[in-house]
Amino acid sequence: MSLDVTFVIFGATGNLARTKLLPSLARAVIHSGVTNHAVIGVGTTVRSEAEFTQIIRASLDDTDIEADCTERFLGGTIAYHAVGGDGSFTALGDLVRSIESGAGLSGNRVLYLAVPPSHLDATVAGIDGSGLDESSGWTRLVVEKPFGVDLASAMRSNRLIHRVFSEDDVYRIDHYLGKETVRNLLVFRFANALFEHMWNRSQIDSVEITVAEMTGAQGRAAYYDESGAVRDMVQNHLTQLLTLIAMEPPVAMTADAIRSEKVKVLQAARAIGHTDVVVGRYGSGTIDGRACDAYLDEPGVSDDSTTPTFVAIRMFIDNWRWQGVPFYLRTGKMMSAHTTHIIIRYARPPVCLVHEPDECPGHQNILTLRLQPDERFELLIDVKEPGDTLATRRIPLSVRYDDILAEAPDAYQTLLTDVITGDQTLFVRSDEVEASWQLYEPILDRDDLETYAPGTDGPDSARGLISTYPMAWTPLSGPIDGSTR
Amino acid sequence: MSLDVTFVIFGATGNLARTKLLPSLARAVIHSGVTNHAVIGVGTTVRSEAEFTQIIRASLDDTDIEADCTERFLGGTIAYHAVGGDGSFTALGDLVRSIESGAGLSGNRVLYLAVPPSHLDATVAGIDGSGLDESSGWTRLVVEKPFGVDLASAMRSNRLIHRVFSEDDVYRIDHYLGKETVRNLLVFRFANALFEHMWNRSQIDSVEITVAEMTGAQGRAAYYDESGAVRDMVQNHLTQLLTLIAMEPPVAMTADAIRSEKVKVLQAARAIGHTDVVVGRYGSGTIDGRACDAYLDEPGVSDDSTTPTFVAIRMFIDNWRWQGVPFYLRTGKMMSAHTTHIIIRYARPPVCLVHEPDECPGHQNILTLRLQPDERFELLIDVKEPGDTLATRRIPLSVRYDDILAEAPDAYQTLLTDVITGDQTLFVRSDEVEASWQLYEPILDRDDLETYAPGTDGPDSARGLISTYPMAWTPLSGPIDGSTR
Repeated sequence: MSLDVTFVIFGATGNLARTKLLPSLARAVIHSGVTNHAVIGVGTTVRSEAEFTQIIRASLDDTDIEADCTERFLGGTIAYHAVGGDGSFTALGDLVRSIESGAGLSGNRVLYLAVPPSHLDATVAGIDGSGLDESSGWTRLVVEKPFGVDLASAMRSNRLIHRVFSEDDVYRIDHYLGKETVRNLLVFRFANALFEHMWNRSQIDSVEITVAEMTGAQGRAAYYDESGAVRDMVQNHLTQLLTLIAMEPPVAMTADAIRSEKVKVLQAARAIGHTDVVVGRYGSGTIDGRACDAYLDEPGVSDDSTTPTFVAIRMFIDNWRWQGVPFYLRTGKMMSAHTTHIIIRYARPPVCLVHEPDECPGHQNILTLRLQPDERFELLIDVKEPGDTLATRRIPLSVRYDDILAEAPDAYQTLLTDVITGDQTLFVRSDEVEASWQLYEPILDRDDLETYAPGTDGPDSARGLISTYPMAWTPLSGPIDGSTR
Repeated sequence: MSLDVTFVIFGATGNLARTKLLPSLARAVIHSGVTNHAVIGVGTTVRSEAEFTQIIRASLDDTDIEADCTERFLGGTIAYHAVGGDGSFTALGDLVRSIESGAGLSGNRVLYLAVPPSHLDATVAGIDGSGLDESSGWTRLVVEKPFGVDLASAMRSNRLIHRVFSEDDVYRIDHYLGKETVRNLLVFRFANALFEHMWNRSQIDSVEITVAEMTGAQGRAAYYDESGAVRDMVQNHLTQLLTLIAMEPPVAMTADAIRSEKVKVLQAARAIGHTDVVVGRYGSGTIDGRACDAYLDEPGVSDDSTTPTFVAIRMFIDNWRWQGVPFYLRTGKMMSAHTTHIIIRYARPPVCLVHEPDECPGHQNILTLRLQPDERFELLIDVKEPGDTLATRRIPLSVRYDDILAEAPDAYQTLLTDVITGDQTLFVRSDEVEASWQLYEPILDRDDLETYAPGTDGPDSARGLISTYPMAWTPLSGPIDGSTR
């Protein structure tokens, strides 16, 4: 494959670009067989080409990228262009064309918008008419998450983008989808007939998706206060996990076939009722032995903030596969553990042959797909307690996936490679992002926040979402052994 | 529970009694709350009570039984009686009654027949009319396996036994059924709805049951030459595993409910055809680095022996659950590994979304229930190969059961405790043993033996039993990773 690409990075000197994007881009460029490339940084600050080169070098030096790889990446054409004034986007278009012509690049362009949501529309408007979207090669637009802050803003941004780009050229990034463990969900589901045959309302009692962090909003509270748990986590990350878990088998493993099935999950989701949600905000206290401020006292948080740092949601997917099966979504900051897991609780035995009838409800098989902190599959089964008894003992069938993952590329490198090769599978389609915002629209601005102590599993009333024994939230800390809290 | 028991052991000084029965009986008596007991040894050799006491003591000293336990066991009434002459059984009946009366025993009797099959009928005939079966307590008859040598002999023995005993009082021992891992099959199946829901012809492609030994017939070839692989292993052990795996859920976990379901499996088994069986006999060669004789050259084997040391069988259970699912049974001596395992191969994905179509057939989930040499559950699943690919890697979800089993009583102790407490669950019912002999009757005396080399997986033509890719025998040595041989 002979492939040359011009990368135009908006927000090229920002934090995201320095810490994540530039190193992953270097890896993706070197390992995906790109034979010639240019990197044109774009920002509102004026910088020289040498300064931008130095930023890239510093960014790469902070990683374990081989020196050889750094030099090959910097061996492409490097340029920088400041935007802001009148005509600055047109001038950028001219610069890009001139670089491509001078460097023998055929005009394949990646326009990477590493800018805050508030700058998205202006940047797209700037691109419109700049000629950046017109070349003899392909042009692909990459947009960082979050895409919009609510349904209206997402729809407005999509309309703006579609004036300039075909949806086939738009790559909405949610780096979660580039993670090997998340991509593995697709493989796990459709490579293992044993589980896929059981993946439905007849066999599954409930599904729990938890993304818990032990950190608070420290250091980025000003940003966080604008978003909160629903916008920052649920609308994108948790929803991606939800749709991958709940989707029907796609017609093929193609981007549009997969994304169409994901959209259908969101379209079939029942409107989330008021009592299906618990929102919370951490108070002051201690976590891991250290004292910590309440969220409201973090620098950057407004005094009248109603931003949730915790949310728990009970959801139903009203389709043939899932009708009646509760999906419990939960995410929070300052929790008792750092963990991301998906827990499938299977139907209990229809008859209590082995267990005593009053013990029977607790004895369901549980499949845990743990994504963080360690990657593992775990299936809880009951075996016989030794001795003259038919009593049972729960043991986990398990396997760690970490060793395999050590070989995996990082999420950004995966996604950037997909952009370069034109694979949209792991990017969020316009209808998908809108369906997601539509689903969560009613719970975006709740002000009935319940305060919870740092280092706990969240507000007490979250427990109330799951009232049917033995279904309850899995304790965040400790082994997943079927016990509930 | 206040319980006293009189144990009358026929064959009390034989090898089985010394090495297995007496130590396990001591443990069972001490640990099941028996408050008073007598042990009356019966044999064809004349021995004194002191000699028999010494035999018991030596037998117990060879084990790790606590000294205290030995003394408590020997603290019961110990006696010995030789049979053979006219009236010797009547005299035994008198002796038992006199001991019971003198020792304040209430007449609960276990008559344990630790005698070869050829002595079974004569011993039962001796009991008939001796008064041994008549007391103010209960009388239970324990019969060692093998029960009969073919259908006719089993039916004859059953008829004889039923002239004296009700079937409710007959305990046909197959010590395999007392093993914790075998008992666990019942619990595993009916405590884990996840697997039980998939336990049928829609979801399972094939079932393999293998009991392989690395040893030959050395030291007991004269006995073995009378039985062979079908009589020694298939008719009892493998059939027990087969019926526990294939049975319907019983109405309750009671002896008769479970045994009725096991009989139904045998009744539904399709007659085994000539081409469904491969029999073999090991030749000379080397195993584990040491030279070994051919079976025909073992001392005690007759020159015109047609006794198989290996048998492989393809079987079908023609009921609603299993129609069309092949059950592959295999057992042999001098094999490449010492292993007992049950392998469930699940249906493959109906559509090859993840795998390439030509790879797809090999990608079925496989559940391994391994009973020996280590006890473990293992479920093979496919996960994603890391990197820019949807290719898969097979990894095992697994758990070792050994640590739990360390706490388990030995099989004989389990079974003897059940005899004392009157639980027939783990004993073979008369209709079950007859149904089993009936099933294997057509393959008992095959003379088309194929010679195989020691240390291999058996005759080449055993492979021919499984002709449908990717189903094939699991290699005996090496991990069970889905590869076949």
